[in-house]
Amino acid sequence: MEFSVNQIAALLGGTVIGNGELKVNNLDKIETAQAGSITFFSNIKYENFVYTTQASAIIAAKTFEPKQEIAPALILVEDPYLAFTALLEEYHKFKSFSISGVEEPSFIGKNVTTGESIYRGAFSYIGENSTIGDNVKIYPHVYIGNNVKIGNNCIIFPGVKIYADTVIGNYCTIQAGAVLGSDGFGFAPQADGTYKTIPQLGNVILGDHVDIGANTVVDCATMGSTIIESGVKLDNLIQIAHNVTIGANTVIAAQTGIAGSTKIGHNSMIGGQVGIIGHLTLAPKTKIGAQSGINKNVTEEGKTFLGSPAQEYAQNLKSLTIFRKLPELLSKIEKIEEKLVHLSVSDTK
Amino acid sequence: MEFSVNQIAALLGGTVIGNGELKVNNLDKIETAQAGSITFFSNIKYENFVYTTQASAIIAAKTFEPKQEIAPALILVEDPYLAFTALLEEYHKFKSFSISGVEEPSFIGKNVTTGESIYRGAFSYIGENSTIGDNVKIYPHVYIGNNVKIGNNCIIFPGVKIYADTVIGNYCTIQAGAVLGSDGFGFAPQADGTYKTIPQLGNVILGDHVDIGANTVVDCATMGSTIIESGVKLDNLIQIAHNVTIGANTVIAAQTGIAGSTKIGHNSMIGGQVGIIGHLTLAPKTKIGAQSGINKNVTEEGKTFLGSPAQEYAQNLKSLTIFRKLPELLSKIEKIEEKLVHLSVSDTK
Amino acid sequence: MEFSVNQIAALLGGTVIGNGELKVNNLDKIETAQAGSITFFSNIKYENFVYTTQASAIIAAKTFEPKQEIAPALILVEDPYLAFTALLEEYHKFKSFSISGVEEPSFIGKNVTTGESIYRGAFSYIGENSTIGDNVKIYPHVYIGNNVKIGNNCIIFPGVKIYADTVIGNYCTIQAGAVLGSDGFGFAPQADGTYKTIPQLGNVILGDHVDIGANTVVDCATMGSTIIESGVKLDNLIQIAHNVTIGANTVIAAQTGIAGSTKIGHNSMIGGQVGIIGHLTLAPKTKIGAQSGINKNVTEEGKTFLGSPAQEYAQNLKSLTIFRKLPELLSKIEKIEEKLVHLSVSDTK
Repeated sequence: MEFSVNQIAALLGGTVIGNGELKVNNLDKIETAQAGSITFFSNIKYENFVYTTQASAIIAAKTFEPKQEIAPALILVEDPYLAFTALLEEYHKFKSFSISGVEEPSFIGKNVTTGESIYRGAFSYIGENSTIGDNVKIYPHVYIGNNVKIGNNCIIFPGVKIYADTVIGNYCTIQAGAVLGSDGFGFAPQADGTYKTIPQLGNVILGDHVDIGANTVVDCATMGSTIIESGVKLDNLIQIAHNVTIGANTVIAAQTGIAGSTKIGHNSMIGGQVGIIGHLTLAPKTKIGAQSGINKNVTEEGKTFLGSPAQEYAQNLKSLTIFRKLPELLSKIEKIEEKLVHLSVSDTK
Repeated sequence: MEFSVNQIAALLGGTVIGNGELKVNNLDKIETAQAGSITFFSNIKYENFVYTTQASAIIAAKTFEPKQEIAPALILVEDPYLAFTALLEEYHKFKSFSISGVEEPSFIGKNVTTGESIYRGAFSYIGENSTIGDNVKIYPHVYIGNNVKIGNNCIIFPGVKIYADTVIGNYCTIQAGAVLGSDGFGFAPQADGTYKTIPQLGNVILGDHVDIGANTVVDCATMGSTIIESGVKLDNLIQIAHNVTIGANTVIAAQTGIAGSTKIGHNSMIGGQVGIIGHLTLAPKTKIGAQSGINKNVTEEGKTFLGSPAQEYAQNLKSLTIFRKLPELLSKIEKIEEKLVHLSVSDTK
Repeated sequence: MEFSVNQIAALLGGTVIGNGELKVNNLDKIETAQAGSITFFSNIKYENFVYTTQASAIIAAKTFEPKQEIAPALILVEDPYLAFTALLEEYHKFKSFSISGVEEPSFIGKNVTTGESIYRGAFSYIGENSTIGDNVKIYPHVYIGNNVKIGNNCIIFPGVKIYADTVIGNYCTIQAGAVLGSDGFGFAPQADGTYKTIPQLGNVILGDHVDIGANTVVDCATMGSTIIESGVKLDNLIQIAHNVTIGANTVIAAQTGIAGSTKIGHNSMIGGQVGIIGHLTLAPKTKIGAQSGINKNVTEEGKTFLGSPAQEYAQNLKSLTIFRKLPELLSKIEKIEEKLVHLSVSDTK
């Protein structure tokens, strides 16, 4: 994956100054870029790096007038930051989807349908009757159970485990070690103190453009489906219990846990290490601060919560501020008590 | 896995009304059931679904008198909910244990003993001198180290990692990505600020009917054993440190962590995201609310705790209630102070 | 791995009393040791175990004078505890590094360099252009992406996933299921409420003597590197986000999460289930209690913090103590109010 400065300039519609034949194979920040890298310069604060960087090429503004000689090749464009971002995305897409073919040994069950340009890494496993769309990248050690459906343009990183009957949309990315469809945690207490396992027969459904973080777990439903709607982004080590629904375009930070049957409204933002108890409904656009504990329904859209158990954000901040001053509060009360003794005495004189 | 309505009726001791030759291959709720599914009707609130469901068969009470014509076949029984639950369990057992045989490539070390009706999935690994009981299902990408003992009727889901010397009882289920026997976290501080690793030589022992959740980790003991007693149910993403003992029939929700050498009494119930520090002993039947932090021994049976650090439940609720009203408390105190100034002034007049 | 008592005595520079030809293959505590084990006796409290233990050999002090006959062989040394610890380390090192060779099937990409005495377990995967040092042990189901560099004497336990471009130093141990280099959690909100994935092009760098716990996740940097410096010990189920730096010899307990771009100073100690928000800098030797939430920079070395949000340790303890007595505080205030009413009345008389 090496490109000449001229090729990149053509892609970006820019003008080359210097050696257009130079090859670049990496993108980096101007402070740390090495030979072989392309970088960008848009913030005047970083101008001296332009003259000292080891980068092979710099994307800069058409209006830029260098004060010294510049070693790297320059690509002059309208907006260097936008151009660099566009390049970044192209590069990432290219890098993510350029791999294809089948590495052996790999396992494919009976009656599996696979699309075009897919990659099946060594030691990957696809169970019977599963359907894999076009341009899906299945890395080594991925397990896909029976009757799984995966749409187009998905990337399933190494060691992901997808239980039977899971349905995944298009443009989903599942990071390493994530588990989709494990048995929900359901046990019926018996008279003798033991528990009987409640069979979990449902599945997991992911919409389109869903991203699942590394070692995150989404349990299957008891019956029906645990649903992660389109555009949801889950960070690492998250727990989604059985029969949960996460509304579209909701973003959840690492190590948060959502208990069984809770429904999160669309376009919500949930911080890290949050806990949400089961059987709740949270309105759309709910915001929840890190480490909060939610134990009640949220009926109004767009509210922000904090604390464990959570309160509305501003209220919780007020209580927290006073919590930190509790020792002063206590001494105030003790002073008042003292004064009152004095007053009472004087009163009874 | 398709059965006729007649076959199911025979299993349940029920009477068929309608087409007993219809085939069903799934169980579902009456609201969502599709063709090919069997469902049940026991709550009168759901009666109109009986006339509109797409299900192929409905389990209903002998006493049920339909008000309209019914498309699905009916199976009439004494108690439809119990009958459906029984069917669910049969179906689940059948589905879980019907798979057997060996998929290739798989790896089996020297001197391994395996029982009858086992399944060894592709890319599964069994180390030397290990013993696997009857009817054990080892899914793809499972790693079983050397000298491991697994009893009968266990299901080890994909990607589970079981370190050497682990002992697992009968009827255990380990969900995908769980790790049993990883090295405990023990490091001796050195004079120069570095740490020396303390070797972890012990193992993990699981009793019978233990369920371990996805991506949960149980560390091996430093010496001796980390012990998960019979009937314990662990949810996903739980951390059990070295030398911990979890008493029989204890249930622990997701993302809870238990530090080294702590002993949890039998029949305890621990919520999600709880933290318990090391070297504690908790009495049997202890209940702990979600997100609590336990930093003291619990000597009395059957108590309930909440908060971080935890208090007895009722006490913590009282403190929490006042915490939420701290701003009002503060303004009360300020009013008192004001009044006192006034009183003091009037007193000194 | 069986040694005679004489061999062990020679290693420890001790004197044998009893049968030096006895074979031992395990180390254990004196309370639980069985035949074939060697144990030690240094604490006088445990003396009666010396006469009852099933162990085959006991390491004891030169000065020890038995009161009864002793069945096991004795190895007499200057300091039995130190000798046993030394033996433990030798045994552990031996056990950890004795395995070597290649199990098949395993996968190795083009242009991979591997050192001497390495172990590549069955179903392990090494991508193109990766370099593996001497004496590295790669267990089954390990995934190593392209362009990864691993130093000497590392142990990579089963099912570890190492993304492309990761760099690992010498003497590192990575426990099962850990993920290094997964994509950082970066999404740019769009006008229509959806999110666009920000490409994550950086990598993860581990220094020397780094230990990573089971199912822990370290994300790659957006650009540049997420850095875990030498001597860092991470427990299980920890989340390290993109662009974080963990200073040398820092120890972090299980289930803690550190958000993006935060820098932790060297020789810090962080408890379990701690959350640290993004873009912070924490001074060296910072100590953080379990379940704390850090939301501010720490500029002074060696401070201890507790609470969520965290305060300095002593302050937080004071507030917590009063929090637990809030009901009494409230009734104090109510009594004061009552008294004031009385006083006011008497005042206005």
